[in-house]
Amino acid sequence: MGRGERLSEFARALERELRRLELKAQRAIVAVSGGSDSVALLLGLDELAKSGRLGFELIVAHLDHSLRPESGQEASRVAALATELGYECEIERIAVAQVAAEIKDNVEQVARRLRYEFLSKAARKHMAELIIVAHTMDDQAETVLLRLIRGSGAEGLSGMARTRALGPGLWLVRPLLGWARKRDTEAYCRARRVEFVVDAWNEDERFARVRVRRQLIPLLETFNPKIVETLSRTADLLREDDAALDEEAERWLKRAGCEDQTVALRVEIVKEAPAAIRRRVLRRWIEINRGHLRRIELVHIEAVEKLLEGERGGRVAELPGGAEIERRRGLLYFRQKEVEKGAMEI
Amino acid sequence: MGRGERLSEFARALERELRRLELKAQRAIVAVSGGSDSVALLLGLDELAKSGRLGFELIVAHLDHSLRPESGQEASRVAALATELGYECEIERIAVAQVAAEIKDNVEQVARRLRYEFLSKAARKHMAELIIVAHTMDDQAETVLLRLIRGSGAEGLSGMARTRALGPGLWLVRPLLGWARKRDTEAYCRARRVEFVVDAWNEDERFARVRVRRQLIPLLETFNPKIVETLSRTADLLREDDAALDEEAERWLKRAGCEDQTVALRVEIVKEAPAAIRRRVLRRWIEINRGHLRRIELVHIEAVEKLLEGERGGRVAELPGGAEIERRRGLLYFRQKEVEKGAMEI
Repeated sequence: MGRGERLSEFARALERELRRLELKAQRAIVAVSGGSDSVALLLGLDELAKSGRLGFELIVAHLDHSLRPESGQEASRVAALATELGYECEIERIAVAQVAAEIKDNVEQVARRLRYEFLSKAARKHMAELIIVAHTMDDQAETVLLRLIRGSGAEGLSGMARTRALGPGLWLVRPLLGWARKRDTEAYCRARRVEFVVDAWNEDERFARVRVRRQLIPLLETFNPKIVETLSRTADLLREDDAALDEEAERWLKRAGCEDQTVALRVEIVKEAPAAIRRRVLRRWIEINRGHLRRIELVHIEAVEKLLEGERGGRVAELPGGAEIERRRGLLYFRQKEVEKGAMEI
Repeated sequence: MGRGERLSEFARALERELRRLELKAQRAIVAVSGGSDSVALLLGLDELAKSGRLGFELIVAHLDHSLRPESGQEASRVAALATELGYECEIERIAVAQVAAEIKDNVEQVARRLRYEFLSKAARKHMAELIIVAHTMDDQAETVLLRLIRGSGAEGLSGMARTRALGPGLWLVRPLLGWARKRDTEAYCRARRVEFVVDAWNEDERFARVRVRRQLIPLLETFNPKIVETLSRTADLLREDDAALDEEAERWLKRAGCEDQTVALRVEIVKEAPAAIRRRVLRRWIEINRGHLRRIELVHIEAVEKLLEGERGGRVAELPGGAEIERRRGLLYFRQKEVEKGAMEI
């Protein structure tokens, strides 16, 4: 293949986005489930690689979730495609449903967590700096709508980011998110005559995401045929808003912190911050002290905000997982109660 | 009626919200269309007034839009209700459809503009400091969804504000927005045995708002039965975000301005601002120079942002209504071309 003159439309759009993202890497893990999105992602990256336009090596990775009888066969197909294209392939099989049952957690969430653990492990093994995943603009619109439905501020409504740090030297990259529709990935797979799997889960209307895709988005399209693009743009705007507010909140947090700058916060400074900043200061402070924000909802932040009211303190707000925040002598103190701390770490 | 002990639930909720809004006024215009929302608003305010719990006098105002044959009769009913309750009543009749046809504008928008002009005139005549309107939480949810569908950032998605300055010493107040559902206003009117009008326009599915109410919200309720409350809360959060970012943008605008602080902006400073702030600086700067932001869309702001790129300038971005922005010698200049300016002022 010549250097670019015969690139498909899909590969050229992918190349533009990769340039825009200014990625620096030697090696990248491409997550391939076998669906049209990830197969198109692999084929597009492969076009760029074969025409010398990709700055990094590719390693294909596939996690067999063992959630369907045909999953083993699908894993073999991904492996065969990778081999045919000339890439190394990491395949692992995990009984996701069993793990979920054992730890009594939601199958979808457990699958997601195990998948990212598997991909990170593959990245470490191959010393890859990137994990490339195939979320499309349709996935983004669904995410925005799901968060809107569940209730969310700018952070949630900004959907998925095009790139996200996963750890030191490791980035998650979504190079289809900003431009590719699912119909584009399907059309491109067909044009390349490569088969893809249609996941039966994607058709199961017991899942909210599937109902968003099959009922809500079609209704919204009767108002605005470009609703998916519109929601994606809104997510971008809100992500920029949220980032600017987070930056500002970091400055306030520095001003409000005392002692080692984390355990105690000065009430009179936090009170002064505009509401949007104040909430972010408290969230960030809780995240630093607690190590994460899991199960922290708006109601918890509001409970802490209530501690700021009035002149005198001495009251306590409870957080999920056995942490609490106390107001005492003009300061907010974070405390993790030991008993529950153990329980959290399962 | 005793002082409060026999207040209805509706009037008590209304009182709580009025207190929360900390209104200072001698007199208020209550806009009453005759629908359940505004009739309930009037009845609720009346309960508070009669039990000595309202700090200001009420004047009822009704604009007959002449859009339906029965509108004259409805105006008479509003007048009769006001008189029966013991309030002065301002009624005016305008042939809205005719005005809209003459200036070739959308009937809904012309109706809205004429209504606010009428209410402001009534406020001036009675030296009222408040115009109280009856938008409910349902209206807020519809507004948020309409803006989401049309494409919007935080400003649009924050919906309607509970209070808004209309001019020096005049505030628009929406004391039902934060808590009342349409079904609450209907139930309260029925409990008080006062009839209300059902506007046929509210049933006409050619209007996007009606389809949002009758198709989209019911579908969203199958995901989250509290979707209206959820959207209202999201609007509140985004309004606070937007306000904090606007404040920050004002500071950047001061830093970036030069000469008389408005005509020219320093490119190198505007470039430095985070994207979310930069867009707001440019919008606000255009608003100051142009007098308003009508017809300014995101694409126009993005065109101005493009002028900031690169090291050298000398390029121009056109704005609707014959204004343009030029980059020259490290500055952005705003220019209103005279010819189109006249055309704008219709």
